[in-house]
Amino acid sequence: MSFSADDHRYMQQALRLAAAATRRAAPNPGVGCVLVRDGVVIGEGATLQVGGDHAEIQAIKDCHARGLSPAGATAYVTLEPCSHHGRTPPCAERLIAENIGRVVAAMVDPYHEVAGRGIAMLQAAGIPAEAGLLEAEARRVHRGFLSRVTRQRPWVTLKAAATLDGKTALLNGVSKWITSADARRDVHALRAANCAVLTGSGTVLADDPQLTVRDAPCLRQPARVVVDGGLATSPQARIYDTTQAATWLATCVSDEARLAPFRARGVQLLVLPGSNGHVDLPALFAALAGAGINELMVEAGAGLNGALLQAGLVDEAVLYLAPYLVGDAARGLFAWPALQSLDDKLPLDIVDVRQVGCDLRLSLLPRYR
Amino acid sequence: MSFSADDHRYMQQALRLAAAATRRAAPNPGVGCVLVRDGVVIGEGATLQVGGDHAEIQAIKDCHARGLSPAGATAYVTLEPCSHHGRTPPCAERLIAENIGRVVAAMVDPYHEVAGRGIAMLQAAGIPAEAGLLEAEARRVHRGFLSRVTRQRPWVTLKAAATLDGKTALLNGVSKWITSADARRDVHALRAANCAVLTGSGTVLADDPQLTVRDAPCLRQPARVVVDGGLATSPQARIYDTTQAATWLATCVSDEARLAPFRARGVQLLVLPGSNGHVDLPALFAALAGAGINELMVEAGAGLNGALLQAGLVDEAVLYLAPYLVGDAARGLFAWPALQSLDDKLPLDIVDVRQVGCDLRLSLLPRYR
Repeated sequence: MSFSADDHRYMQQALRLAAAATRRAAPNPGVGCVLVRDGVVIGEGATLQVGGDHAEIQAIKDCHARGLSPAGATAYVTLEPCSHHGRTPPCAERLIAENIGRVVAAMVDPYHEVAGRGIAMLQAAGIPAEAGLLEAEARRVHRGFLSRVTRQRPWVTLKAAATLDGKTALLNGVSKWITSADARRDVHALRAANCAVLTGSGTVLADDPQLTVRDAPCLRQPARVVVDGGLATSPQARIYDTTQAATWLATCVSDEARLAPFRARGVQLLVLPGSNGHVDLPALFAALAGAGINELMVEAGAGLNGALLQAGLVDEAVLYLAPYLVGDAARGLFAWPALQSLDDKLPLDIVDVRQVGCDLRLSLLPRYR
Repeated sequence: MSFSADDHRYMQQALRLAAAATRRAAPNPGVGCVLVRDGVVIGEGATLQVGGDHAEIQAIKDCHARGLSPAGATAYVTLEPCSHHGRTPPCAERLIAENIGRVVAAMVDPYHEVAGRGIAMLQAAGIPAEAGLLEAEARRVHRGFLSRVTRQRPWVTLKAAATLDGKTALLNGVSKWITSADARRDVHALRAANCAVLTGSGTVLADDPQLTVRDAPCLRQPARVVVDGGLATSPQARIYDTTQAATWLATCVSDEARLAPFRARGVQLLVLPGSNGHVDLPALFAALAGAGINELMVEAGAGLNGALLQAGLVDEAVLYLAPYLVGDAARGLFAWPALQSLDDKLPLDIVDVRQVGCDLRLSLLPRYR
């Protein structure tokens, strides 16, 4: 397998199309495709909505719309062309029918209906087809879809905000405006990039948040997921206003009389196993994946955040640090039982540090052993 | 007052000489001086030791050593030339005697024996002399001397290290190697740049540290200062080994029998007022300034750190954040009473963020109101 500098350049272009399409295409992968012949881009496409044309078909149509033919062109596509009849016919068949000259995919599609068959179908038709160009980048762009399909859980990004001494609120609970307006806008943009935003009953009771996207551009409002094992929240909480965005309530309570007021507001119920009134988190994430959630953002309190981190369920974390000190007698970031040894600490890779307004934003990847 | 681009360039050169000299010259200011004639540097000097030649004299001697005369040259000096007979004769007199053509100082010397008289003496002799070129930079380089002379206290840099969730140690006290070897080397370099390193009795009892410079180049070992109001530490603690470096013990205990074992080890005693067994911190800092400490580094525990920050006695802070989480059930950075309102938080300016090994290092300036 060998790819030229031009191959890399066109695949990068396809990856940019994919990144822009990801949120619109969910739960499908937001694939990008670029058609190139004789050093000229003759068609571009991305998967833009569920049930709509896949990226390859969009690019072929774009090519025809320009009065050109895709015959003999190279198709750069961020995920292997599909080989099966899903909501749309197989892209591999169409590429063959259009006499495409060569197909380069960033990665094989791990979805069980494809899993290499798209590449094989093209090769069987005599079209040179290979996968593996900029695969790491494609895995990053498609991480939500890949996580749902291969791990049966969403890709989980935990967001937290604290002072420089690691405090999220004063002892008396006061926490409004720890971080700046710029950081809050950044959080809204992060929400907009996720299929759903998850929080816990404690946060709903304390802050009555909406968790909608208001301060950033938003193609589709993410769904809200409330984890409330014992049904401690009120159905009147703002987050249960489903005219703003969809809301799911994950609970261990199955008593229909108690659930009815939530159902009446349009809330979707996930009655799940649990222990001590706490929802079983792996079961919850499996249910969310089953419901088509690719990317999940967590905006919860110290308890739920700590439980998720300790359970190894957080894929990345975004930590905003506000340039203030409030002292030790205040509330901390992550609640979990006291460690006995530093060997038990949770290591993270700091992959990005930047200033957002007057705050610092750290991007972190937990390194689970 | 108007300075050319060349003026700026030569003053920057003088400031670099000053920065390199500061630690050697203490408690004198580590002044830098550059002599320039017809666009050529003909002499350089810095104040390198107490009682030795001042920067201007060093530069004049350097000029003569090159077989040149300083007559007609411009002298760039980071602090106003002295006008008084101290340990050495007045530099202003010598500049006049050498027929210097022009004198540019970065700033007036606030020391009461000078305070503008050096510039006035030069002007009275017909030599154009002015101050104010790159003054902010000179104030930064000379901050220790300036703080001691104008505020009668050292310039205080607090160093702290914590996990990303703001913890310095586990609940059981385990704290060894929270940060990386690179960060520890960086801390030793910071120690080497200070006249003294201050810690509290709690840290001495818990860690028995030496607080000497071992992992970085060091011209003069900084003195150690132990704040131990109630005399809880043992005279056998390693920090009282004065063969390594000087040690001062600041205490409220005046009982000679209890102090004798410390004195016997060569420890210098500062018996100070206090309340509830805690040394009065402004009195301590005044005593340290009186003893010639320009720059003081603080490496203490949450209690003393918190007290210093709350008392407005910290000029800058260096915070190392290690890429780990240990959870809330662990020890925090800064102990002080619970705040009732976020209005009472201590704001800081983040002036530098960099990676040191795998840790983050933040440079912070507290913004006291």
